[in-house]
Amino acid sequence: MVRVGVVGYGYWGPNLVRNFSDVADCEVATVCDLNPDRRTLVARRHPSVSTTADPEDLIRDTRIDAVVIATPVSSHFELAMRVLAAGKHVWVEKPLALNAAQASRLVEQADRVGRTLLVDHTFAYTPAVRKIRDLVAGDALGDIYYYDSVRVNLGLFQHDVDVIWDLAVHDLSIIDYVLPDRPCAVSATGMAHVPGQPENIAYITLFFESSLIAHVHVNWLAPLKVRRTLIGGSRKMIVYDDLEASEKVKVYDKGLTMRQGPDDVYQMLAGYRSGDMWSPQLEIGEALHSEARHFVDCIERGATPLTDGRSGLRVVQILEAASRSMRERGRIVELEASQCAA
Amino acid sequence: MVRVGVVGYGYWGPNLVRNFSDVADCEVATVCDLNPDRRTLVARRHPSVSTTADPEDLIRDTRIDAVVIATPVSSHFELAMRVLAAGKHVWVEKPLALNAAQASRLVEQADRVGRTLLVDHTFAYTPAVRKIRDLVAGDALGDIYYYDSVRVNLGLFQHDVDVIWDLAVHDLSIIDYVLPDRPCAVSATGMAHVPGQPENIAYITLFFESSLIAHVHVNWLAPLKVRRTLIGGSRKMIVYDDLEASEKVKVYDKGLTMRQGPDDVYQMLAGYRSGDMWSPQLEIGEALHSEARHFVDCIERGATPLTDGRSGLRVVQILEAASRSMRERGRIVELEASQCAA
Amino acid sequence: MVRVGVVGYGYWGPNLVRNFSDVADCEVATVCDLNPDRRTLVARRHPSVSTTADPEDLIRDTRIDAVVIATPVSSHFELAMRVLAAGKHVWVEKPLALNAAQASRLVEQADRVGRTLLVDHTFAYTPAVRKIRDLVAGDALGDIYYYDSVRVNLGLFQHDVDVIWDLAVHDLSIIDYVLPDRPCAVSATGMAHVPGQPENIAYITLFFESSLIAHVHVNWLAPLKVRRTLIGGSRKMIVYDDLEASEKVKVYDKGLTMRQGPDDVYQMLAGYRSGDMWSPQLEIGEALHSEARHFVDCIERGATPLTDGRSGLRVVQILEAASRSMRERGRIVELEASQCAA
Amino acid sequence: MVRVGVVGYGYWGPNLVRNFSDVADCEVATVCDLNPDRRTLVARRHPSVSTTADPEDLIRDTRIDAVVIATPVSSHFELAMRVLAAGKHVWVEKPLALNAAQASRLVEQADRVGRTLLVDHTFAYTPAVRKIRDLVAGDALGDIYYYDSVRVNLGLFQHDVDVIWDLAVHDLSIIDYVLPDRPCAVSATGMAHVPGQPENIAYITLFFESSLIAHVHVNWLAPLKVRRTLIGGSRKMIVYDDLEASEKVKVYDKGLTMRQGPDDVYQMLAGYRSGDMWSPQLEIGEALHSEARHFVDCIERGATPLTDGRSGLRVVQILEAASRSMRERGRIVELEASQCAA
Repeated sequence: MVRVGVVGYGYWGPNLVRNFSDVADCEVATVCDLNPDRRTLVARRHPSVSTTADPEDLIRDTRIDAVVIATPVSSHFELAMRVLAAGKHVWVEKPLALNAAQASRLVEQADRVGRTLLVDHTFAYTPAVRKIRDLVAGDALGDIYYYDSVRVNLGLFQHDVDVIWDLAVHDLSIIDYVLPDRPCAVSATGMAHVPGQPENIAYITLFFESSLIAHVHVNWLAPLKVRRTLIGGSRKMIVYDDLEASEKVKVYDKGLTMRQGPDDVYQMLAGYRSGDMWSPQLEIGEALHSEARHFVDCIERGATPLTDGRSGLRVVQILEAASRSMRERGRIVELEASQCAA
Repeated sequence: MVRVGVVGYGYWGPNLVRNFSDVADCEVATVCDLNPDRRTLVARRHPSVSTTADPEDLIRDTRIDAVVIATPVSSHFELAMRVLAAGKHVWVEKPLALNAAQASRLVEQADRVGRTLLVDHTFAYTPAVRKIRDLVAGDALGDIYYYDSVRVNLGLFQHDVDVIWDLAVHDLSIIDYVLPDRPCAVSATGMAHVPGQPENIAYITLFFESSLIAHVHVNWLAPLKVRRTLIGGSRKMIVYDDLEASEKVKVYDKGLTMRQGPDDVYQMLAGYRSGDMWSPQLEIGEALHSEARHFVDCIERGATPLTDGRSGLRVVQILEAASRSMRERGRIVELEASQCAA
Repeated sequence: MVRVGVVGYGYWGPNLVRNFSDVADCEVATVCDLNPDRRTLVARRHPSVSTTADPEDLIRDTRIDAVVIATPVSSHFELAMRVLAAGKHVWVEKPLALNAAQASRLVEQADRVGRTLLVDHTFAYTPAVRKIRDLVAGDALGDIYYYDSVRVNLGLFQHDVDVIWDLAVHDLSIIDYVLPDRPCAVSATGMAHVPGQPENIAYITLFFESSLIAHVHVNWLAPLKVRRTLIGGSRKMIVYDDLEASEKVKVYDKGLTMRQGPDDVYQMLAGYRSGDMWSPQLEIGEALHSEARHFVDCIERGATPLTDGRSGLRVVQILEAASRSMRERGRIVELEASQCAA
Repeated sequence: MVRVGVVGYGYWGPNLVRNFSDVADCEVATVCDLNPDRRTLVARRHPSVSTTADPEDLIRDTRIDAVVIATPVSSHFELAMRVLAAGKHVWVEKPLALNAAQASRLVEQADRVGRTLLVDHTFAYTPAVRKIRDLVAGDALGDIYYYDSVRVNLGLFQHDVDVIWDLAVHDLSIIDYVLPDRPCAVSATGMAHVPGQPENIAYITLFFESSLIAHVHVNWLAPLKVRRTLIGGSRKMIVYDDLEASEKVKVYDKGLTMRQGPDDVYQMLAGYRSGDMWSPQLEIGEALHSEARHFVDCIERGATPLTDGRSGLRVVQILEAASRSMRERGRIVELEASQCAA
């Protein structure tokens, strides 16, 4: 039995409490939130769960094995360090920390105390992204040429982080999970349209050692919601539309075939091959439930989570580089060698 | 009566001949193509039109008032210079020339001889783009925050120019026509996936003096065709989907409203306003027909075309800067002051 | 304060309990379900609500003012009669009863005891259907020509009632709420594809005194889910797609205009007018919550519900007629005069 | 070499002339139209084709082997009879004739004179419908449960025939081609909304000997154009959307599987199986070109066309029965035994 405490009962906290409550061999013991109204809500919905305003109550509580941190990013580092120092396992919402230095120290601390550190990159646990990863890993696509994602929203403005840290973090964690290579350099552009507020639109290009190129468009102020990713390979291509009720993943038997030009034997022509489209049936089930169960499994078996601290660190490194490049109008920012040598 | 000669009867030539034939007070006299099969096709379809393999025949023909150049880009400059030198009006397919130096000399030459120079930026003549321009010019959108276009294709690979010159030229000419400001700097990224071939995927960011940002994504190797532009303003936003049979233009009564934060009188909150959507009925009619009629009108009235040599030059300047930036992984390239001081 | 008991905690019951719990001046006192697992679930989720296996416990409980019946259709009549006989208000899931005779007796009984009888035709409380009703009532559409609905599902097979009683009941209640006239006659066709099971596909045509025609297509075995209604008027037309996340209701400024034929002054030509499309912003909010609040309001103010017993009876009369017509391959079945004389 | 004459150069005639001109071993010799403007247009577009106002000129012309009839339906019978009597092959636009008696006499006449009679049911020559037919014939779908088609238009009002004869003729010819069985009885409903004009909306149900049911919805006054057909089988289901640019045909691996109920060994439960979706790549090519070539082939080889007079007759029999049923509000009309015993 893993006993869990949850810090932060805002937007995402209720989903976490509900899903951890449903996992076998797991129990939510305490929820911490500064806001008394939120604590009252917890008490009404989950009469058996105790509440507190002080995260230290969870951290000190010896009956609690693991702490879930669902607070604003700025508090992730300090809270997670204390949880690990108390010998507890920790689940941290995305992004892992405010910068790579913090993220790196969290990874070291988790290693030192031998506790599980999971970063909540939820998409890695969705049936759609898992199917895409299987297709890529199984070489169904051939050489991967590009990864192109559009993630635009209807006005959910954040005030503490820019749109890259808020939205592109999803795409970067999917890229980290799905693609065989890791990016070497970043160029990003973007703009803030509200005085005194962070950038609300951004375009990020990732370069790799190969000719693979990845691009992410994130925008808080779009007239419609879009969640569409194109992945192009030499053999097949994928369209992943997360807003499609069914047929989220479509695999196109299209690609490039090189052939000799008709007039000139020395000229290679790029021919486009067009074939069937196939949309695989995906498993049903809430990603967050799979992820909560995975966390409990990792704790019990001492295994490394799919989205461990290292993946959280890699994502933060790219976020940091992208924000820097964006502030310098697209100047290329090289990533650490450790990233690139995947 | 304006008598027209057409050089180049490849992919676009037949559309040009057909549309110029339909314009009142205009007659297609001669078509020039190197390929005898194409000339035979012209003769079969248009028995009254003469054909030739030599463009000089058109240029020398004193009964011809205007020449339409629909040949590969590399020949635009030389052909158009000779047409203008012969005192004839000229219509040049997009892009106007291989580089800004050439384009600039064409503009000067047209000025010197006092003849009409039109660059075929067809989209400026479509009912959808005209409606968008009217909405922007009439200040329906408020401050323009961003212009975001995706133009991706299923494998129509060009071998002589990169994807920016082939596809982004459309978006840059629409931007030139629709937006009130002109770009000051460009950052672009892209990649070539076929050895020995030009870049087949590219991402271009345009910066302006204001906080307006424009972005264009072009791709020859997508699994599906997309032609979608988002234009975000402070008051309203537009979605323009050129593949929609009806409802190509949708205007969303959505935007950003600033309000005081509840807890802190010093904090401005960005609020998102959501309202009705409206899709205006567009005029019916082929853009190329309107454009051909406009060319004939400009010749007869001595007027400056909507898409004149100067707009063609501005677009080529950006294309040149974008290709250069792309080859240097996003390095910012400043545009001439003449661009920026719109 | 209205104290509510709920009978039946199957598929829909949890939504009812949750929504009634949220209504001010209202409290869910007891939930009844035969299945002990369901009662345990109630206890876990709603610790303050008592449970029972015997509906008589609710009916006899003098502290309970109103009973919500969410059991299979076959039990509606008997349960609701007993609830009314005990002087309590009653909410009955759709359809009201197994046949018109039963429905009619329920209406009489509610009248006699002076208690509120609401039939849960939820769609009448959705913002989309309310907007459509306002447009129709405000004469925005002109003469209504047709109402055409497609409601097809992916395999949610019922075993006790045919597809008309399961799915078309929604469309018939929307028609009852939205259209100014009431149907006079019904012709229906359909088929059962599973031996021993009720009809799983059906097509229903409703005739009115005017030239209005309504048609409903319901199907349990479709490859994709469709919820699309077209409403055609002489001035405007509506497309209502309940599966659209935004833009559920689109109003087309299209219609028919009569004009004299060019060649023959005696011939009237039907001309089609095409104009803008407009998609109104809809209110946000769960329909079931509005409906629960409306039920409590009606009880407290002694008002007649929007979807009262009479509307429930009218719908059952059409269901009965449609099923009969379907079993006779489309034979016309006249409806009672009371229906037709709207 | 087959020499063809075309009678009628209205809406469809130009497509016929263009496609027959492209077929090898075939030549369009003469086009007949009453309207001198249309004849002038023919002369301009096809200088080598002669024109006439009198169909007798074609019928008498011994150098003409086959006549294509693209005139209003009311003239089909008389013209086609005279063409056949003159020993020429004949292509008749859909529907074949005004009633089954006429259609039947045309079939007899073609048999007697031993000439080819093709009815232009173009959809049978489209790659999409051919693929569907192959899937059905290859038993990919299992037992066919239903065929459901929606074909609604934006105001293309006909004045001489009702909407069934104008639009449903397409669906009935596809049904005739694709389905293994033939209908035994028809029930139809519909309405005319314009005084003095034919019915502009109609719903047709076809019954078969098996439990297969087919339904066709046709409407001239819809706010949007729809061309969508659902075909449900016990093993797989098809969605055919003719307005999709790509992916016109989607095959769903969904169906019904019967299983024992958990509580009652005597109760069979209908279970819904959900699987992958697959969209086959379709051949490219204009259906009318394939059909014209097929007509010439049949003439040269003495073969029976895919859409011969007998299929034209079967379709007319159903049209006649459907119109009659519609005028009697859905009364079932039995079809001839010859239809049903497919």
